[in-house]
Amino acid sequence: MSCRNEKKDWEVEFERERQEKTAGIEEILRAYLPEKQGQQRLIMEAMEYSLLAGGKRLRPMLMQETYALFGGREKVVEPFMAAIEMIHTYSLVHDDLPAMDNDDYRRGRRTTHVVYGEDMGILAGDALLNYAFETATLAFEQYPDRALLIGKALRILAVKAGIYGMIGGQVVDVKETGHAVSREVLDFIYELKTGALIESSMMIGAVLAGASDAEVEKVEKIASAVGFAFQVQDDILDVTGTSDVLGKPVHSDEKNEKSTYVTLTGLAEASRIVEDASREAIRLLAELPGDNPYLSRLLEKLIHREK
Amino acid sequence: MSCRNEKKDWEVEFERERQEKTAGIEEILRAYLPEKQGQQRLIMEAMEYSLLAGGKRLRPMLMQETYALFGGREKVVEPFMAAIEMIHTYSLVHDDLPAMDNDDYRRGRRTTHVVYGEDMGILAGDALLNYAFETATLAFEQYPDRALLIGKALRILAVKAGIYGMIGGQVVDVKETGHAVSREVLDFIYELKTGALIESSMMIGAVLAGASDAEVEKVEKIASAVGFAFQVQDDILDVTGTSDVLGKPVHSDEKNEKSTYVTLTGLAEASRIVEDASREAIRLLAELPGDNPYLSRLLEKLIHREK
Repeated sequence: MSCRNEKKDWEVEFERERQEKTAGIEEILRAYLPEKQGQQRLIMEAMEYSLLAGGKRLRPMLMQETYALFGGREKVVEPFMAAIEMIHTYSLVHDDLPAMDNDDYRRGRRTTHVVYGEDMGILAGDALLNYAFETATLAFEQYPDRALLIGKALRILAVKAGIYGMIGGQVVDVKETGHAVSREVLDFIYELKTGALIESSMMIGAVLAGASDAEVEKVEKIASAVGFAFQVQDDILDVTGTSDVLGKPVHSDEKNEKSTYVTLTGLAEASRIVEDASREAIRLLAELPGDNPYLSRLLEKLIHREK
Repeated sequence: MSCRNEKKDWEVEFERERQEKTAGIEEILRAYLPEKQGQQRLIMEAMEYSLLAGGKRLRPMLMQETYALFGGREKVVEPFMAAIEMIHTYSLVHDDLPAMDNDDYRRGRRTTHVVYGEDMGILAGDALLNYAFETATLAFEQYPDRALLIGKALRILAVKAGIYGMIGGQVVDVKETGHAVSREVLDFIYELKTGALIESSMMIGAVLAGASDAEVEKVEKIASAVGFAFQVQDDILDVTGTSDVLGKPVHSDEKNEKSTYVTLTGLAEASRIVEDASREAIRLLAELPGDNPYLSRLLEKLIHREK
């Protein structure tokens, strides 16, 4: 068997595993969605419409795999997996609102406020953010003897989604849209808007599996490097990709006169930066105890993706 | 000293105590607000503008007094007092948005989205809701040995603010605005939109002080009756009050063709309903162990208020 074929087998197996895991995550999301009932049924419908819109389910997957890396084998991670995806989803629902990015479509589907009205778009986002905490706090009832670990995980969930995390990044992104920004500002936006939830996902997985503070700190660094490389790769793909492969328009950054790593450093330097961050993540991952080959491959795939 | 003067002394003393307690709550709110710094400083300013807009601070006060009723003497309640007021405030910020009630003023001050723009209005609401959980989860770090109680309190905080609580009430209120509704629908809106956060406040106070499940259940019933009577009294004052005393326009329900307890049952019956709910709350409160005369007076004041 040639080397090329060996790689292909490995990739086929990875993709099969990934599909299986994604399907498992979809089941968890469905299980934790509220039942559509009562006078307020409409909001449950809007939440489900937003949450079950497909997507790679990267954040819950990273959480689950990091939990497994540290030897976690229980269901205590599941309400948190649902919660992080609810937070990611609410941020998209609010981002799409007319007063924000004003997007009518996302992944080829009408956005929540277009289907349910702008008032319900606002309330559905609020409801998903709030329900993320309702869902995560279920863990106290399921595993009362683990209350302190769950509390620690909850605090990470909250902090990384807030003004020192995702919302902080959104605020600066909204303020700086439509004009060139410095690398410092761009780094801030990437670290917070994209990085924070990836850090949250992996850190919560580690914490719930009982990782030490030093280990959780290392996980945060890995996730930060992954999130950053992921985002710079996004900048690169916007220039080098084709809309057929990406499933979204290319050259949109140029059209929107958006500063990116490509406009700031050039394509070659941006690629080198992705390589560096990626190598750093893999190096740190290897230093952790335990072994999760699927997680290592997932991280590499995320960074070196073509779509 | 005449009976009338005795009552006046009692009231003067109550008002003095109330002002003192309100000032204490303002201090706690300030202490738990994020520092205004960093590239995302604008969002911290918008959060502070929204949160420090005055108001009666009823919810944190009810929480603190219920905590004291059950013998609570520590600071573990303080992050939750700040959190419940942040949740109440975010709901007002989002309610005022153009796609919701479209209000430019609240208590004589320009609303958050008018001052900071609609995008920041959305993000400031999101930030306050999220920061409520960031703040409440601080309690795990402050009192790690109380993790299970804190987890229980957090779950109440989340559930009562969500689709089975405040947001559920908002959804039905938004849907039913502008046409007559049945008493069943009105009860649903009152119970959830106003009642849920009052229940949350008092229940969290009880839980953190170590009240039993049966006691917490009784506290929920008291708070539900108080919230309901409070809301029906609001309907009555909109008809019988003067805008000078209330500090807001009267007859607004009639103008907006809104169903209220007055339109549904008439003024006399609405007053009787307030009396009944109020008596029920006081009766249940007397059944609880412990004694907090200030709390009893506060509940009576809330219901029999003239503004």
